[in-house]
Amino acid sequence: MQDLLDDREQEIVGRVRAFLEERVAPIANDCWSRAEFPFDLIPGYAELGIAGLPFEECPGERPSSMLTGFLAMDMARVDPSMATFFGVHSGLAMGSIGRCGSAEQRERWLPAMGRMERIGAFALTEPEGGSDVSLGLRTTARRDGDHWVLNGAKRWIGNATFADLTVVWARDEDDGQVKGFVVGKDAPGFTATRIENKIALRTVQNADIVLEDCRVPEADRLAEARSFRDTAAVLRRTRSGVAWQAVGVMLAAYEIARRYAVEREQFGRVIAEFQLVQDLLVKMLGNATASLGMVVRLAQLQDAGMYRDEHSALAKAYCTTRMREAVGWARELMAGNGIVLDYDIGRFVADAEALYSYEGTREINTLIVGRAATGHGAFV
Amino acid sequence: MQDLLDDREQEIVGRVRAFLEERVAPIANDCWSRAEFPFDLIPGYAELGIAGLPFEECPGERPSSMLTGFLAMDMARVDPSMATFFGVHSGLAMGSIGRCGSAEQRERWLPAMGRMERIGAFALTEPEGGSDVSLGLRTTARRDGDHWVLNGAKRWIGNATFADLTVVWARDEDDGQVKGFVVGKDAPGFTATRIENKIALRTVQNADIVLEDCRVPEADRLAEARSFRDTAAVLRRTRSGVAWQAVGVMLAAYEIARRYAVEREQFGRVIAEFQLVQDLLVKMLGNATASLGMVVRLAQLQDAGMYRDEHSALAKAYCTTRMREAVGWARELMAGNGIVLDYDIGRFVADAEALYSYEGTREINTLIVGRAATGHGAFV
Amino acid sequence: MQDLLDDREQEIVGRVRAFLEERVAPIANDCWSRAEFPFDLIPGYAELGIAGLPFEECPGERPSSMLTGFLAMDMARVDPSMATFFGVHSGLAMGSIGRCGSAEQRERWLPAMGRMERIGAFALTEPEGGSDVSLGLRTTARRDGDHWVLNGAKRWIGNATFADLTVVWARDEDDGQVKGFVVGKDAPGFTATRIENKIALRTVQNADIVLEDCRVPEADRLAEARSFRDTAAVLRRTRSGVAWQAVGVMLAAYEIARRYAVEREQFGRVIAEFQLVQDLLVKMLGNATASLGMVVRLAQLQDAGMYRDEHSALAKAYCTTRMREAVGWARELMAGNGIVLDYDIGRFVADAEALYSYEGTREINTLIVGRAATGHGAFV
Amino acid sequence: MQDLLDDREQEIVGRVRAFLEERVAPIANDCWSRAEFPFDLIPGYAELGIAGLPFEECPGERPSSMLTGFLAMDMARVDPSMATFFGVHSGLAMGSIGRCGSAEQRERWLPAMGRMERIGAFALTEPEGGSDVSLGLRTTARRDGDHWVLNGAKRWIGNATFADLTVVWARDEDDGQVKGFVVGKDAPGFTATRIENKIALRTVQNADIVLEDCRVPEADRLAEARSFRDTAAVLRRTRSGVAWQAVGVMLAAYEIARRYAVEREQFGRVIAEFQLVQDLLVKMLGNATASLGMVVRLAQLQDAGMYRDEHSALAKAYCTTRMREAVGWARELMAGNGIVLDYDIGRFVADAEALYSYEGTREINTLIVGRAATGHGAFV
Repeated sequence: MQDLLDDREQEIVGRVRAFLEERVAPIANDCWSRAEFPFDLIPGYAELGIAGLPFEECPGERPSSMLTGFLAMDMARVDPSMATFFGVHSGLAMGSIGRCGSAEQRERWLPAMGRMERIGAFALTEPEGGSDVSLGLRTTARRDGDHWVLNGAKRWIGNATFADLTVVWARDEDDGQVKGFVVGKDAPGFTATRIENKIALRTVQNADIVLEDCRVPEADRLAEARSFRDTAAVLRRTRSGVAWQAVGVMLAAYEIARRYAVEREQFGRVIAEFQLVQDLLVKMLGNATASLGMVVRLAQLQDAGMYRDEHSALAKAYCTTRMREAVGWARELMAGNGIVLDYDIGRFVADAEALYSYEGTREINTLIVGRAATGHGAFV
Repeated sequence: MQDLLDDREQEIVGRVRAFLEERVAPIANDCWSRAEFPFDLIPGYAELGIAGLPFEECPGERPSSMLTGFLAMDMARVDPSMATFFGVHSGLAMGSIGRCGSAEQRERWLPAMGRMERIGAFALTEPEGGSDVSLGLRTTARRDGDHWVLNGAKRWIGNATFADLTVVWARDEDDGQVKGFVVGKDAPGFTATRIENKIALRTVQNADIVLEDCRVPEADRLAEARSFRDTAAVLRRTRSGVAWQAVGVMLAAYEIARRYAVEREQFGRVIAEFQLVQDLLVKMLGNATASLGMVVRLAQLQDAGMYRDEHSALAKAYCTTRMREAVGWARELMAGNGIVLDYDIGRFVADAEALYSYEGTREINTLIVGRAATGHGAFV
Repeated sequence: MQDLLDDREQEIVGRVRAFLEERVAPIANDCWSRAEFPFDLIPGYAELGIAGLPFEECPGERPSSMLTGFLAMDMARVDPSMATFFGVHSGLAMGSIGRCGSAEQRERWLPAMGRMERIGAFALTEPEGGSDVSLGLRTTARRDGDHWVLNGAKRWIGNATFADLTVVWARDEDDGQVKGFVVGKDAPGFTATRIENKIALRTVQNADIVLEDCRVPEADRLAEARSFRDTAAVLRRTRSGVAWQAVGVMLAAYEIARRYAVEREQFGRVIAEFQLVQDLLVKMLGNATASLGMVVRLAQLQDAGMYRDEHSALAKAYCTTRMREAVGWARELMAGNGIVLDYDIGRFVADAEALYSYEGTREINTLIVGRAATGHGAFV
Repeated sequence: MQDLLDDREQEIVGRVRAFLEERVAPIANDCWSRAEFPFDLIPGYAELGIAGLPFEECPGERPSSMLTGFLAMDMARVDPSMATFFGVHSGLAMGSIGRCGSAEQRERWLPAMGRMERIGAFALTEPEGGSDVSLGLRTTARRDGDHWVLNGAKRWIGNATFADLTVVWARDEDDGQVKGFVVGKDAPGFTATRIENKIALRTVQNADIVLEDCRVPEADRLAEARSFRDTAAVLRRTRSGVAWQAVGVMLAAYEIARRYAVEREQFGRVIAEFQLVQDLLVKMLGNATASLGMVVRLAQLQDAGMYRDEHSALAKAYCTTRMREAVGWARELMAGNGIVLDYDIGRFVADAEALYSYEGTREINTLIVGRAATGHGAFV
């Protein structure tokens, strides 16, 4: 499949893979187990030069959607937590600024974020609002002179326990529109508390955020974020990124299971010789290959400019559903060893649950596609 | 997806679609119901100029694998029976001659078959041998001067009740190798009896063939068919064709169900407004889209010359499995009306069962892929 | 499981099974293929003395719900069409009269129906109304002196092409309530036209009924059918009967597949020796056993008087879903032979689709259970 | 379903449930999170008086299989880890002694274990042997005067880090038969090391055991354990216990999800009002109900003395497969909150993976049933 990338892009992918194998893979289980983020890896990620690639404020040639997809896939193949960390920073936070910021704002924030000297977060989801985030968004913004005053709560905000800046989405009390604000971690009235006891993506630091009369200068309101439509445009791209991540997880699961199957012996032979084991492996491979075919085609649509919400919603729902099956089959194949982190698959099984639900549950994505397919909304 | 074809190929696809819609669709249910083959359509198929496209003995430019795939898909989308008829004639029978015939044999048979003046069949499967056809092939060929004497039985041979010539595969008693013979319908000792009481692909005329001292001239032995390996090379291509057919069936099922959903009312509203109905539609669409992504990629591999047995085996097993789900969802959505032929879906549900099993069951294709993936055969 | 019946009930089951094996099994495929009803079997069914068992107007001891269930299961195990014929006559038509008729009406109709001298049908479903039958019922009844005038259309009415009397449900124009009318086959204004081109339960004769100013004497209005609630009470029992039928179909599929697996050879051994084949058989057996456990418990609840709509809705939806999987696995195991009627499984695969949808689709039964489970209706 | 128990048994179940709700539920997540065993609960479990109920050496009336099943189900419904702890102690360790011990041995060990003053473990599985444990068992026992010398390794041994005595299964070097030995925790040459990094049943303390010239008195060899057949008899009962546990997990998942669905709001209404949510709930309920029907019938077979390996193998494979689906649907319904331990479901999702694989994977149980169903073994 890699032939779909040109030489320059293949070089980037190769560089990223080497980093992931050498630096991320060896510590992934340990970080996950302790639910601690490997801050010392950030410089390494920065050196890869891939944060903010799509933005002209950052160095490098603009990437194809195919390259962006491959990077998401390869990161998730090694560690879905770190793929998520990167997706939040580069896709959601930088993506919001890149798409909705003024020229001045883009210049002010993107270069340092591209060098990963400053890390971003993206605060949209709320305690009471997930699937209905646009209608149900309750966080408020009130204009007060050359400042805005934000009030409300956000939940599940990845990176937000340590991010230097968080893009917060709030509803303007005045015109009722959803707008975006870049909030520094030390802003008065901004509190981010780590969500404990996670059983998936444990390395990702998610926060519950409380905004109590949090004051943000007008200069830090994203100038081009005029309504939820602009927020949605950011999400559309990252949602397809989750589909690519799901493919990465499936490939990882398949590889882990295949390796185990050709080594583990039972009844005097490697278990890869048993039909029931081959059945599991081939079903995994089918899921992974078809899903890859789907996201590749999606990337081609993106690059051709024919890309709509329902496309990424379908890919996200479909690929994560197939992923969930695939990691289950891999774990099953490894029986008892499949529930010990050291054999790797356990982490992917757990993380798959988070990917399945984040950036839109299967249900909400189904309804997005269903509306496009039938012309009838069935949300309520 | 159609952008994947060039202009010339799109023109061909357009022409074929028009024929299918105008000539095949209106009679598909009736032929199926009566289990009768629409012989009067053959001239129309011939005019399309697509039989034997891959062979230089036939007019037209050689097609890409993508075009061949699209044609199989589009035919199955309207009528899997007629797609099968065509696949047997052009893919299996002409494919055997095109690949395993001498230059003289190709010249002797292919042009008339390309014009569909002579129709072909392909006799490999036997009453006792399906999945193990290579090892279990029992039909024998004994050299007798400048003739061969064939003995044995074949089963499920599509088109064979009326085909002008049937490619019969038999094991040379002398060297134990499987060889191919072109047998005319009036050959002494050749009897083809229609298989009755089919519940799927009823329009396809399948035969039980008995060969009793059936004499075939040496000149009609396919010169380049030296072992089962050559037979397998023919099957590899047609097997991926079944994957394309499966995509066609899914698209048909989706379209039929979607159309029904936006028209049928219950509880005072069209059923497309119900979440449970959208769920079925979106799952169908996911299956179809991912499968299409898979076969598109497969065609690209074929055209790039990187195409192995396990690729088509995986695609065949995966796409037909997804197809079987999809037609079931479509039928479910149409409830009672789904079991009356007039609503179209019933025919696709039934035909899907045949596609699922022919050219290799899910089980045998799983084991072909499993062997390639693990290096261990698990057939026995 | 049969130990769950007492000796007398076991004797009845034994008698019915013998009849099914000797008289029904040998002709089931042929009737199905020709879509013709075996009228000459009716006297045999009558001799079994099981029609109308629950009603004191008929001879015999009242049956337990367990016995009623076993009979439905055993009939479907041999021929779902004939199980349906019997269910319509005894369960729906006699059930309506037995439950909603006055003493005089019960005495007038049930004895002859119990002797199967008169056969009944049950006309509820309409062309535009399936899932929403209670709300959407459009057939009207208008009182006119000591008669009623019925107008409207019914669809899918089993047995109605030949039934001596059909219970027709219509909405009283006056009070808006749904009421039941026993209509003779020669009633003026009553026309029943056979539904052609069915692909499932082909032996069952379903009719489209048109009622044009059809006059019915007040004496033939079911005296105790005062609202749809009474209709629903009839359906509750027959719906659980479909769950039992589904178990019968699963057992048939398992037995057919198992028998085939221990006889059919591939690769020099019976296919029952292959893991992938055992996998299919064991999954079938699991589905059948668990579903049987479910309906047994349901019958115990019925006999204990603790039986609600949601119980039969859950059993119907669950068991028919499992059935659909099971027949598919059996057909898959038999590959090509699975699509020829002579091998039996094809008929069960096709018929399963009808059972899956009739007496409430999976969707509508899901919503009935969902309302009971959550206290919230989600129908619209 | 509880009506299936008599009054005395219902009282026991009630007492156990109260204990589980009051003492176990409140700390389950915390123990799981810290992977620590709640030793202070042991006296409470002891007071319930249910350990060793089946043995006459312990007080209390012998329980029906139905009661034993209900207890396993209810324990798993609150905490699968503690259900496992109890199952290992009472079912496997006491079960081995109760079934395979001499009268003297039973008297020596069972009363104190029944009072839970001494806790047991059961060491059968080995690092290299899971599914093929009988054939592949490598731990050796060598007779040396009035002692035996054990050598080998065991893996996954629940409770073994702290158990007072562990039943170790080893192959007699002399006659090749598998025999059982009761080994004290301080026996020389016996080392039990905790397995770290588990992602399921984290509260259960599993050990890797090493036996290096571990000396055991002949008096501690289980007198009636003469071959693996005796070991298998112990497992048969506990395997059906896992099926009951699986039902408990499903009921827990359903209850957690249902409660969430009627409280959580989206789009201005509780999510229980959405069809897609009801679909998940009803599928869970179907799985749980059918599985319960299956194990109830199994218990009735057990109590009637008609109970074979394949029965418990089928129930174990089927119910744990359905359980895995059910917990996934519950987690899905709870979206992001489903991956935080505090919402309970996460623990059940994780633990379900262990239940799915322990006491025989789906694959090995399928082959056990397949052999019984077809008369052909397909293990190798």
